[in-house]
Amino acid sequence: MAQLDIRDLSGRIMAGERRALARAITLVESRRDDHRDAAAELLEALATDREALRIGLSGTPGVGKSTFIEAFGCMLTGQGKKVAVLAVDPSSARSGGSILGDKTRMEKLSRDPNAFIRPSPAQSQLGGVARRTREVIQLCEAAGHDAVLIETVGVGQSETMVAEMVDVFVLLLAPAGGDELQGVKRGIMEIADLILVNKADGDLEPAATRTCADYAGALRLLRKRAQDPPGFPKALKVSALTGAGMERAWVEMRDLATWRQERGHWQARRRTQARHWFEEEVRQGLLARLAADPDTRKLMTELGESVARGDTSVPAAAQQLLDRFSR
Amino acid sequence: MAQLDIRDLSGRIMAGERRALARAITLVESRRDDHRDAAAELLEALATDREALRIGLSGTPGVGKSTFIEAFGCMLTGQGKKVAVLAVDPSSARSGGSILGDKTRMEKLSRDPNAFIRPSPAQSQLGGVARRTREVIQLCEAAGHDAVLIETVGVGQSETMVAEMVDVFVLLLAPAGGDELQGVKRGIMEIADLILVNKADGDLEPAATRTCADYAGALRLLRKRAQDPPGFPKALKVSALTGAGMERAWVEMRDLATWRQERGHWQARRRTQARHWFEEEVRQGLLARLAADPDTRKLMTELGESVARGDTSVPAAAQQLLDRFSR
Repeated sequence: MAQLDIRDLSGRIMAGERRALARAITLVESRRDDHRDAAAELLEALATDREALRIGLSGTPGVGKSTFIEAFGCMLTGQGKKVAVLAVDPSSARSGGSILGDKTRMEKLSRDPNAFIRPSPAQSQLGGVARRTREVIQLCEAAGHDAVLIETVGVGQSETMVAEMVDVFVLLLAPAGGDELQGVKRGIMEIADLILVNKADGDLEPAATRTCADYAGALRLLRKRAQDPPGFPKALKVSALTGAGMERAWVEMRDLATWRQERGHWQARRRTQARHWFEEEVRQGLLARLAADPDTRKLMTELGESVARGDTSVPAAAQQLLDRFSR
Repeated sequence: MAQLDIRDLSGRIMAGERRALARAITLVESRRDDHRDAAAELLEALATDREALRIGLSGTPGVGKSTFIEAFGCMLTGQGKKVAVLAVDPSSARSGGSILGDKTRMEKLSRDPNAFIRPSPAQSQLGGVARRTREVIQLCEAAGHDAVLIETVGVGQSETMVAEMVDVFVLLLAPAGGDELQGVKRGIMEIADLILVNKADGDLEPAATRTCADYAGALRLLRKRAQDPPGFPKALKVSALTGAGMERAWVEMRDLATWRQERGHWQARRRTQARHWFEEEVRQGLLARLAADPDTRKLMTELGESVARGDTSVPAAAQQLLDRFSR
């Protein structure tokens, strides 16, 4: 990346220039020190009160997530809204990233001038993915998007991570046999605001109805949360194929957000999220400094060898290194 | 914990005193600074060439893991061996720990004087769990155990974490319908040395045979690893209930370990593991120092508020804090 004019770049992002946004994302995803500094400066310059509805979307492979996002995104852009889609998928990031195929999976949406699709950043560490994604969300908000969809595959802790950076968390499911209810971990149910049972069309319609009723029942058993209006969390049927229920799903998300805004829950949640993000950023930043310091790296290698030979115990070696680095 | 005589404690651990071992584990699991120092000193004092076979055991709830460990452990103690069982389960640790019921789940083994069972440490962070578990493994080895079994539920990254601290990784499965093969993530298959299909008894015997054959087929499709003797990774049937296949499973683990020892793979793997452990210990230790420093904590709270109010951007606030802490 050549000489950067941060003020110019931030102006062009705010004006909604796609190329400027893409460039800024590349900047925040870079690990280079000078890029990190520039990214920090850019985010500081972009601090605006523009806010998008941040929607987390989780669903295991096979539930039709791409098809859903394609249909949902096109519906929103059809209403004149600007939509950004970000992918968070640590496992595929690790294996090289099948998710790079995002744009081909969402052919229509990716050609839509009011949609912006960004695949998962190539970071192997969950913490690293989270850092970038949060910054990219801010960039997308500054660029004037009305909705930012953060999709994740249901792998390990990625859902919790995504839930901690969104306003509304949606769980997408496929119609299933009754006993598959157990397949969804309780922890995921507990963070969901909306469960959407996709593929409610054709032969699968009856199964979708049943699955939806099962989850609605399961949701009623969960403990009531202060930030939920009556009737939430909710389970609904949708069909990304026919479009059935898609508008309703959007209305529910928006109404939920409005309800929370009017009662201050939304603001409180964003404040908490910002605080947690900051603390995480400090931790990640500290580890990055550790890794970047040449003297530390050299000592790390030496002590690592000593530990591998069995000459030094791990805690003793670690203490030795830390005393040198932090003091 | 009162005044500690590290030399005395280490002597009693080496002599195989159970109470001394339990006390040492409590010490390494403590977060108190003086305990951390004492733990480091103890591990340094205990550095011996006593080595146990470290066996990782993964299996989702319902595969009969407790029953398997009970039967497997009792079989080994019956042969005069000393066995330690450690649990690593970040998710249950988080929710308060159903795993505390371990000892009641393994009634016979827990009363066996040659067995030592330790539930999951109450650490919410995966990194924290790993740190303690590695140290506890070393304590168990110093205490003269022949086998250390580290069990984990198949949640997120905990399997990878356990695989990185053992010599042999075993995946325990229940008999299932053919299409459930997909339920086991490819990543888990790739780290398994041995797949054991449990419950190969009574009505489930035919299903177990089928499942075993399915997995044997799937394993043959994986890329060959240098550290595997011919025929490995392998899938076998066992029944913790009748004991069928249990002796064979142990022999396979032992033969695998011997093969790897004779060719240096075992030693190379342990060296790499020690190096990684050290690096991870440095990272965790650094974060602990960050959290422990009172000035940093105060500034963290102040900057956190500033970020929550929207007065400072997250990267700028993080940089400010880090410049104060590290330098």
